Amino acid sequence: MGGDRAPGMVVDGASIARKRFPDVRYLLFGDEARIAPLLESTPGLKGCCEIRHTKDFVSNQDKPSAALRTGRQSSMRLAINAVDAGEAAGVVSAGNTGALMTMAKIVLRTVPGIDRPAIASYFPTLRGESIMLDLGANIVCDAANLVQFAVMGEVFARTVFGVVKPSIGLLNVGSEEQKGHEEVRAAAAELRSTDLPISFHGFVEGNDITAGTVDVVVTDGFTGNIALKTAEGTAKLYSEFLRGAFHSSLVARIGYLFARHALNKVRKRTDPRRYNGAMFLGLNGIVIKSHGGTDALGFANAIGVAVDMAANDFNTRIRDEIAHLHAGAAAAKPPQAVSG
Amino acid sequence: MGGDRAPGMVVDGASIARKRFPDVRYLLFGDEARIAPLLESTPGLKGCCEIRHTKDFVSNQDKPSAALRTGRQSSMRLAINAVDAGEAAGVVSAGNTGALMTMAKIVLRTVPGIDRPAIASYFPTLRGESIMLDLGANIVCDAANLVQFAVMGEVFARTVFGVVKPSIGLLNVGSEEQKGHEEVRAAAAELRSTDLPISFHGFVEGNDITAGTVDVVVTDGFTGNIALKTAEGTAKLYSEFLRGAFHSSLVARIGYLFARHALNKVRKRTDPRRYNGAMFLGLNGIVIKSHGGTDALGFANAIGVAVDMAANDFNTRIRDEIAHLHAGAAAAKPPQAVSG
Repeated sequence: MGGDRAPGMVVDGASIARKRFPDVRYLLFGDEARIAPLLESTPGLKGCCEIRHTKDFVSNQDKPSAALRTGRQSSMRLAINAVDAGEAAGVVSAGNTGALMTMAKIVLRTVPGIDRPAIASYFPTLRGESIMLDLGANIVCDAANLVQFAVMGEVFARTVFGVVKPSIGLLNVGSEEQKGHEEVRAAAAELRSTDLPISFHGFVEGNDITAGTVDVVVTDGFTGNIALKTAEGTAKLYSEFLRGAFHSSLVARIGYLFARHALNKVRKRTDPRRYNGAMFLGLNGIVIKSHGGTDALGFANAIGVAVDMAANDFNTRIRDEIAHLHAGAAAAKPPQAVSG
Repeated sequence: MGGDRAPGMVVDGASIARKRFPDVRYLLFGDEARIAPLLESTPGLKGCCEIRHTKDFVSNQDKPSAALRTGRQSSMRLAINAVDAGEAAGVVSAGNTGALMTMAKIVLRTVPGIDRPAIASYFPTLRGESIMLDLGANIVCDAANLVQFAVMGEVFARTVFGVVKPSIGLLNVGSEEQKGHEEVRAAAAELRSTDLPISFHGFVEGNDITAGTVDVVVTDGFTGNIALKTAEGTAKLYSEFLRGAFHSSLVARIGYLFARHALNKVRKRTDPRRYNGAMFLGLNGIVIKSHGGTDALGFANAIGVAVDMAANDFNTRIRDEIAHLHAGAAAAKPPQAVSG
């Protein structure tokens, strides 16, 4: 029931995803009276969908704490419960981000060794794709949080992305050691001196995100959210300027006709729907947050992210990897000298 | 002597600026042995330039505190001193940002009512241009700093930009009142309840910067710096994708030939050199920071920003406006009830 165009957009998204992943089944949580007619009118979807009726839903205006208290029968909460109960491999929601994170934390709990989950997403870069976290779950972060985000990002890039030795960068206002605030400097000092087998690049700046300088960009949720939305806004500005240019004269319109095919490729490559589906990392369960304003195609991509993580059994791997990393770090420590 | 290609780039920049502003004269601070031959070989420039020789200069690696202590005879310091002495209307530097800010604060001091200067710059938007501050001078800001940045941005947009009633937005991760960290919420509360005649829009998000939702975007220097560089990186990514698209096939190349004229307009409109020249607001003197990696055209634009601020007598106006705003606010306060 979440998102600007739910539940129609969600059903249509499942319909698109069904063609890509024919074996996936869907539990749809929400108002049966509204969802059932949509299923009826969508060919082929009924067979792989099951409606779990509830009247309650979390609105975008609800505070996370209020949603947690009063939303025990909400579609969002019941969907998360289904993941916890093992009925669903993951949950995809276009609803209230804060409520989704708060409920998921309470119901699914964090992986051992992780204090706070983080929101991660893919980013297009000059060298391919990178991932960035946190994108808004943790507005204020200390050094330990940032170090944990680095570990989660590293494991994600290695296990799901398939990067052999992913490089990690901490987002800052300059590359020199003394730059930035206390938290970011302390996190860098810890990542530089850690026994964890992590390839820490050092500080990166805003322009390094799209340059693809590192595979994983780590930052606090305040800065990450603003960087993500600034990038989205800039891409939109650029494409509007282009649209205007191609409409500015007859000659330019002719040029557009010739270049249309190539330009459509650029449009697809920078389409925000392509990168829809932010991952909540660090939970005992797969939780994917779709943009609230997305359409069916964007929602289908968010479903794809969940399918990908489930197929790679990401959650087991991240738990094992983090335990392994910590065990390795402990073993690598020199034995303590005994005084006497 | 600052910037990657100084002093040649600086001299060439002055040469371009000379054609735009024929009445401006330049004091060039630095190594005479290197600057004099450049002036000799640049037609027409010698007549409006005067070299102030010094061997010392601040490097990009110098810490601001060290530059302040040991750089009393540096080209940067002597140039700032010339502004303080009234010999120069403003200083333009492509050197070490931190050192420039630290020296300028000590020598020129802040305007009464302003605790800390901020770095501001123009931003292209869908609706024209806006200004954003702080872009990196103050990594950690409290609510009072953010409120002062809002006041400076308001006065700047009104007096130099000519916006009748500029709208002010505080950069945050959402528009609702409870969003963000303590400092940004406290600053919003103060701007909402203030007696200052300021048009406070409320919180804005990263995508609002280029959407042009407000005339002035206010944030701390950490977030602002990262947002600025993320926008620059995204614009570069987009233009690289486009370049690739136009080279991807013969048909696309033909399209480019037709659309070239229109596309060049977009390139000019988004050229970072066009927006070169960040303003240090809140000082008793005009200080403009050019990108270190810019070329002569970019440096000429930074000179243009200084000329513009000097021509509009911005510093007197900001001082008067801030005094006036504070006086107005004091007068607008209801008289205190006398109990008895």
